[in-house]
Amino acid sequence: MEAKANGPSVNAGRVMDGPTNPMVTPLLTDLYQFTMAYAYWKAGKHNDRAVFDLYFRKNPFGGEFTVFAGLEECIKLIANFKLTEEEISFICETLPGSCEEGFVKYLRNIDCSDVEVYAISEGTVVFPKVPLLRVEGPVAVVQLLETPVLNLVNFASLVATNAARHRLVAGKSKMLLEFGLRRAQGPDGAISASKYCYIGGFDATSNVAAGRFFGIPLRGTHSHAFVSSFMSPDEILERSLHRSDGSSTCEDFVSLVQSWLSKIQWSKALGNSVGETNQSELAAFTSYALAFPNNFVALVDTYDVMRSGVPNFCAVALALNDLGYKSVGIRLDSGDLAYLSGEARKIFQIIEKEFELPGFGKTSITASNDLNEETLDALNKQGHEVDCYGIGTYLVTCYAQAALGCVFKLVEINNQPRIKLSEDVSKVSIPCKKRCYRLYGREGYSLVDIMTGENEPCPKVGERILCRHPFNESKRAYVVPQRVEELLKCYWPGKSGKVREELPALKDIRDHCIKQLEQMRPDHIRRLNPTPYKVSVSAKLYDFIHFLWLNEAPVGELQ
Amino acid sequence: MEAKANGPSVNAGRVMDGPTNPMVTPLLTDLYQFTMAYAYWKAGKHNDRAVFDLYFRKNPFGGEFTVFAGLEECIKLIANFKLTEEEISFICETLPGSCEEGFVKYLRNIDCSDVEVYAISEGTVVFPKVPLLRVEGPVAVVQLLETPVLNLVNFASLVATNAARHRLVAGKSKMLLEFGLRRAQGPDGAISASKYCYIGGFDATSNVAAGRFFGIPLRGTHSHAFVSSFMSPDEILERSLHRSDGSSTCEDFVSLVQSWLSKIQWSKALGNSVGETNQSELAAFTSYALAFPNNFVALVDTYDVMRSGVPNFCAVALALNDLGYKSVGIRLDSGDLAYLSGEARKIFQIIEKEFELPGFGKTSITASNDLNEETLDALNKQGHEVDCYGIGTYLVTCYAQAALGCVFKLVEINNQPRIKLSEDVSKVSIPCKKRCYRLYGREGYSLVDIMTGENEPCPKVGERILCRHPFNESKRAYVVPQRVEELLKCYWPGKSGKVREELPALKDIRDHCIKQLEQMRPDHIRRLNPTPYKVSVSAKLYDFIHFLWLNEAPVGELQ
Repeated sequence: MEAKANGPSVNAGRVMDGPTNPMVTPLLTDLYQFTMAYAYWKAGKHNDRAVFDLYFRKNPFGGEFTVFAGLEECIKLIANFKLTEEEISFICETLPGSCEEGFVKYLRNIDCSDVEVYAISEGTVVFPKVPLLRVEGPVAVVQLLETPVLNLVNFASLVATNAARHRLVAGKSKMLLEFGLRRAQGPDGAISASKYCYIGGFDATSNVAAGRFFGIPLRGTHSHAFVSSFMSPDEILERSLHRSDGSSTCEDFVSLVQSWLSKIQWSKALGNSVGETNQSELAAFTSYALAFPNNFVALVDTYDVMRSGVPNFCAVALALNDLGYKSVGIRLDSGDLAYLSGEARKIFQIIEKEFELPGFGKTSITASNDLNEETLDALNKQGHEVDCYGIGTYLVTCYAQAALGCVFKLVEINNQPRIKLSEDVSKVSIPCKKRCYRLYGREGYSLVDIMTGENEPCPKVGERILCRHPFNESKRAYVVPQRVEELLKCYWPGKSGKVREELPALKDIRDHCIKQLEQMRPDHIRRLNPTPYKVSVSAKLYDFIHFLWLNEAPVGELQ
Repeated sequence: MEAKANGPSVNAGRVMDGPTNPMVTPLLTDLYQFTMAYAYWKAGKHNDRAVFDLYFRKNPFGGEFTVFAGLEECIKLIANFKLTEEEISFICETLPGSCEEGFVKYLRNIDCSDVEVYAISEGTVVFPKVPLLRVEGPVAVVQLLETPVLNLVNFASLVATNAARHRLVAGKSKMLLEFGLRRAQGPDGAISASKYCYIGGFDATSNVAAGRFFGIPLRGTHSHAFVSSFMSPDEILERSLHRSDGSSTCEDFVSLVQSWLSKIQWSKALGNSVGETNQSELAAFTSYALAFPNNFVALVDTYDVMRSGVPNFCAVALALNDLGYKSVGIRLDSGDLAYLSGEARKIFQIIEKEFELPGFGKTSITASNDLNEETLDALNKQGHEVDCYGIGTYLVTCYAQAALGCVFKLVEINNQPRIKLSEDVSKVSIPCKKRCYRLYGREGYSLVDIMTGENEPCPKVGERILCRHPFNESKRAYVVPQRVEELLKCYWPGKSGKVREELPALKDIRDHCIKQLEQMRPDHIRRLNPTPYKVSVSAKLYDFIHFLWLNEAPVGELQ
């Protein structure tokens, strides 16, 4: 499968493909990154070695977990980070004042060969304060990366988390379809939502472009307009349909459908309750079945689900069955989904019995129409017969919380640790180039994440270690890990010579995410009052943070 | 200015540039549009002449108006709508079952030459139920357009409306900057937000890519990381600065700043209240001023706004003033913005007097930090001294309401009017190919929008016309318009030979939007309890809607 739009041609000969969206270039950044680059360059500081952490402060959607996503696109940006001459001219025209020739030369030469990126694997369940990415390199270059990397991680992680939350409430057995393209925040708000919803546990998308870019399974049937574009079955000119096995041809499939419809209408088992159905709907269903006899799915709510849509669907499905085809199911897009799915299920079961059609009772029921976590939860509580959900607006726009607040903070420059203070303790940054570990307990669940200074020894299996809350001195606990996982791996070694972690295939990221969620202690991921997962620092790092904090903070004067 | 990413190369020789984002191709659609196209083709109905209306049902953000945007991108998509061979192969692999050769040939030939698009001008203030776009053409092709056109209009109109609402509460005199790139929903969630916020009345963006694509003014200075990347002024090696007029050079600007700082620290007018300021901050400000002496803006809240940031800014600004440079101002990114802006203003005014610096009291104060409509409103109520707002997350993600619900409904096929029924009256569609007018009253304000059948006479100035609510029989009013504006204009004539309306420049769309908002009666656009604007149908259309409705709706049976 061809899976990429072409990146800017200047990047030909690059070590890996560019970002999916060709609009992701070094100009996709805030102007102040360029003004700062100029100021750093003027001050001769542009090559100062800086370390930045990318992290968030609070899990989204009132939950206690986040799925990290967006890494692959970040690495593709970094691998291809190079300004074109046109871009450089534009920057020079845009910077206030005149731009010195030396700076133009500098811009011409910058790339990410001297940058190192450590990151948590994409699809991992992550928590506040722990760096998702650690980016190290010349300060001016790393700052240019700040904005695009935040842009690529923030929405990706937000929507992957949203998808994972929808999966958790829907349950493993349901099919989940992402239907968000028409309401998403722009074209790649949609395309990237499709990608990251798949990572978060969705099964397929309606978005053809996303299917092509990423190889995500595609699903889709027909709309209300299709139904209302027909007037009556008389319109259908080509009425023949081969049997499924090719052995013969039914010359008038339309009449076969009509005859089944009248059997349904006169069926005692159905209580003689089926009256006249809508003929334009019947024509649309019949036409759709003629086009896709192996994949007949009908949208049954254009006129009236129980009085028209479901009987019309059953008539067409029974006619298809005569010719050896198995229908897929119906879609409900309005009304009381719990009630209607239950009523439709009853009809399918009666027909299975009445017309001896084994399996027809299990005909698939898809529900759509402004679904979200809350409505799925409400459906579960009421009881329903839905097998598959099509979820759009609330999923892809992350309607319940439309942004994740990842930040990118300087933690070290020229080997000097830096701290960002704030009146609000939750906004104080954790200084130093760090290592991060996840410690697992006896039951296989992860117990705590711990950050240490870069040169501290790695926590060891079976050895007791003190884990401290970074800012609350009374919160600390000893842990004896049964397994220790180092979280940050080298995804972009620059010229350091370190081994570069491979970027996994999308399917593998998805599998990793699903496995990760299965390994979480259930109380951390439940919807109602989830337990916060513990994030800690080593005793040594704790002491250093507080030493630095006192050192930097001005002593107040009460007047 | 070069203003475009390149569209797909297959579109070379096209009549106009392709969409800004090259990912906007005919594949950016729901799979069901292609399955329906196949089913229409199989049924021989693919060329049935269909008319679809694109409209929304409810204004966003609890308001009573919406700014229509996204038209230009739609027309660019339509003008370049052509499937490539690779795209066709992908569709054929993806459609369930085998894809007939005749359909492949059909796909190869489709374009929008037989499609006509009528639309309201981009940037116009619009209301529920009135078609923003009317798309007419072969049913299969128009349905393929449904999803991308909805995608391109929904977010564009939502974010333009959000921007306009922020402008209304901020007031005309304030400078509004869009700072949303890092938190936006993906790369072109950001780029398109920059474009449509500009249309909605913002003055500039921080997003360099958006500046380059669209020619939007760019703004940006420096971040907290820049401040904390410096240790002390000793680091600054290149200390000389030419006078603004080039007449001489100050060899040690750093010392000049230091001497001004001590004057400030010992100033009686400032109450001897300024103690030691942070030296890394002073170094950063000095460096930034050396790089941009004509555009010195300082972010003053890294350590302590009043005890460090403002005095350090003033010291650098006074030193710049000695050399003939006028500083721009400060940015506040945390804390109590009303209070801090007021305190900073006082200091600027004292310095203006004390050091005889005319105009210094008016030094610009920019505020940022999670601003939205509510916080702007609260600042207004408290009183503040902010001149300029930098607004990000809440603006570009439309946090208060992350999606607009535009729909695309079939209103006519082969000259037969179609209606989409629903249990919910607000979801019943208005059938027929229509004309739409805006009627203006004596005071120049618009009074009502009215939809008529296509062949009804146009409402005339000075002639009484009955305007009816489309679904509520008791709501109707006579209007004598002083001006009549036809809303829908032909933006894509296909091969009809009609004159094509030109797509205006972005700046003109913005001016149109601002003018439109000025022409609205204030109670329609106010934040609190706005008055709904009236949308009506002609008496003739009213009668026809209700005739068709009764005709299509099944008669219920109470059991």
